[in-house]
Amino acid sequence: MKTIRASIIGFGSVGRGVARTLIQKEDEIKKAGFEVKVVGIADSSSGIVDPDGLDLEEILKHKDSTGRVSEERLSGIEIIENIEHELVIETTPSDIQTGGVGLENMRMAFSKGRDVITSNKGPLALRFSELINYAKANGSKFLYEATVGGAMPILNLVRETLAGNEIKSIQGILNGTCNYIISRMMEEKAPYEQMLAEAQELGIAETDPTYDVEGIDTASKLVIIANSVFGMDVNYHDVDVTGITKITPEALMLAHDEGYAVRLIGEVKDGTLKASPRLVPLDHPLAVGGTLNVAYIQTDLAGDITVSGLGAGSIETASAILSDIMSLYRER
Amino acid sequence: MKTIRASIIGFGSVGRGVARTLIQKEDEIKKAGFEVKVVGIADSSSGIVDPDGLDLEEILKHKDSTGRVSEERLSGIEIIENIEHELVIETTPSDIQTGGVGLENMRMAFSKGRDVITSNKGPLALRFSELINYAKANGSKFLYEATVGGAMPILNLVRETLAGNEIKSIQGILNGTCNYIISRMMEEKAPYEQMLAEAQELGIAETDPTYDVEGIDTASKLVIIANSVFGMDVNYHDVDVTGITKITPEALMLAHDEGYAVRLIGEVKDGTLKASPRLVPLDHPLAVGGTLNVAYIQTDLAGDITVSGLGAGSIETASAILSDIMSLYRER
Repeated sequence: MKTIRASIIGFGSVGRGVARTLIQKEDEIKKAGFEVKVVGIADSSSGIVDPDGLDLEEILKHKDSTGRVSEERLSGIEIIENIEHELVIETTPSDIQTGGVGLENMRMAFSKGRDVITSNKGPLALRFSELINYAKANGSKFLYEATVGGAMPILNLVRETLAGNEIKSIQGILNGTCNYIISRMMEEKAPYEQMLAEAQELGIAETDPTYDVEGIDTASKLVIIANSVFGMDVNYHDVDVTGITKITPEALMLAHDEGYAVRLIGEVKDGTLKASPRLVPLDHPLAVGGTLNVAYIQTDLAGDITVSGLGAGSIETASAILSDIMSLYRER
Repeated sequence: MKTIRASIIGFGSVGRGVARTLIQKEDEIKKAGFEVKVVGIADSSSGIVDPDGLDLEEILKHKDSTGRVSEERLSGIEIIENIEHELVIETTPSDIQTGGVGLENMRMAFSKGRDVITSNKGPLALRFSELINYAKANGSKFLYEATVGGAMPILNLVRETLAGNEIKSIQGILNGTCNYIISRMMEEKAPYEQMLAEAQELGIAETDPTYDVEGIDTASKLVIIANSVFGMDVNYHDVDVTGITKITPEALMLAHDEGYAVRLIGEVKDGTLKASPRLVPLDHPLAVGGTLNVAYIQTDLAGDITVSGLGAGSIETASAILSDIMSLYRER
């Protein structure tokens, strides 16, 4: 059986979800004709390596009790550079301003000819074509289903399941936090601030919600879709973005009376990218509530395909990463 | 470039849709690293072969004007037996009683070691495990996305995009005709017979609607899902089936007042298969209207995934067949 040596760089909720998933799905992965041996793990302050394979249970326990994966100061990029392995699972937090450490990690991985599977939107929203070309030039594979829509399958769906179709447009609800807040504003006829506070209490919105509610997260995902599915060469600054902070319950009720819901819709169509609150007919597939993500894909042959699923969550995002791992390495 | 020699057996609306799609998507297929050369085509009364590749445009014209693909009496099974080719695209009509000519075609294809891609539910709903095992024993590949849900991706979605997930249950609206009739009965507060007549006028229901409205079509698709996704070994007779003919508009309105829609739901769960009218909350992903097909997939990692699309149509079904062709032969 083929052994894929992997590192997990970033050991927050997603990275730990990946580790748990690799433990849980060891048999399923073997059934697909390979095994994954994790030879390096790093969080922001420490790292640990073992060319013979790390004990994931042990490291998860250590991280839970100490907040670190080890007592050794070893960075992700050092692991990527110096330890022999095939796959870098890059799960550091998104930095949409500069691409952050994730961008450096990916560049290093490609320079060493390693494959990269990531949940980190920042580098892709800023430097998609550079990264894709760099990966290609070094013979590295590069997959990033987890950057868009969590467990909602979209990139792999278009690539595998809709193969051969021309994709005409994609519209989607790509941020569960915004969708929760808008849905609840309508249900409770309550102002934005009140439902934001509720979402924060429930852990659905962050203490600083800017990234979600200003549409930045939606725009980042849209850029990844545009580059990946439509072969465009755009970055985050090419998106026309409006967030949800100016929406009033009165506007939502007015729309509802006319048979519409208001949703923060990301759209790639006719070469332009737009993320903004839009009116959606109440019986349209995009008019979902709660924290769901949904994508509405218009194609030339298959007609209109809608897919929805949970857009966030540690295990759900790890599931998208597992889907990429399977896609890259399984026997066919 | 790899050349895949193919036959199209059955040249009704799906077979012709496949031919048109192969013409239209020649470049996309080449981009995936192979080309498809159709070396044989048969309908129910005639056949035509050319080891150097048939002129699909020409044959489509001939079929349109004469109702036959050629003037030669040559059967599908003769083509499958005697012409050298890799792939049989089996698009003859479904026979749910005996499996019909489709079953014989598939057996012959596997006996010659050829791959089969099909839209023909009958043989799979009756003799799934026999066919799968026979294909395996002969080194043949066997894909059948088009048998379930037309362009709505479900089998490939589960296999490729949700790879590694345990599928806990699948519920779906798998028959667009029934869904159209029930949706319209509610909208118009009209009896079954009236909306059936409307559906027949629009070409959505057949003159003899039994196969759709009695739930037979839904049950057949369910069997294919159960065998394929859940690894069960069941056939059409193992499904508990109730159709939609006894539903009254009064029952629909009563349900609606309580916040429910009535839908013909096919369900595979806990090892049992059931196709019957069920109450679905109005805001549930399964509560779609019109001729859409939808599947609601419960998984262990990815949570609940919903996918919907057009369940029928010549080009939509051909799209599912193209998706299988890409999945089998493309370069990775």
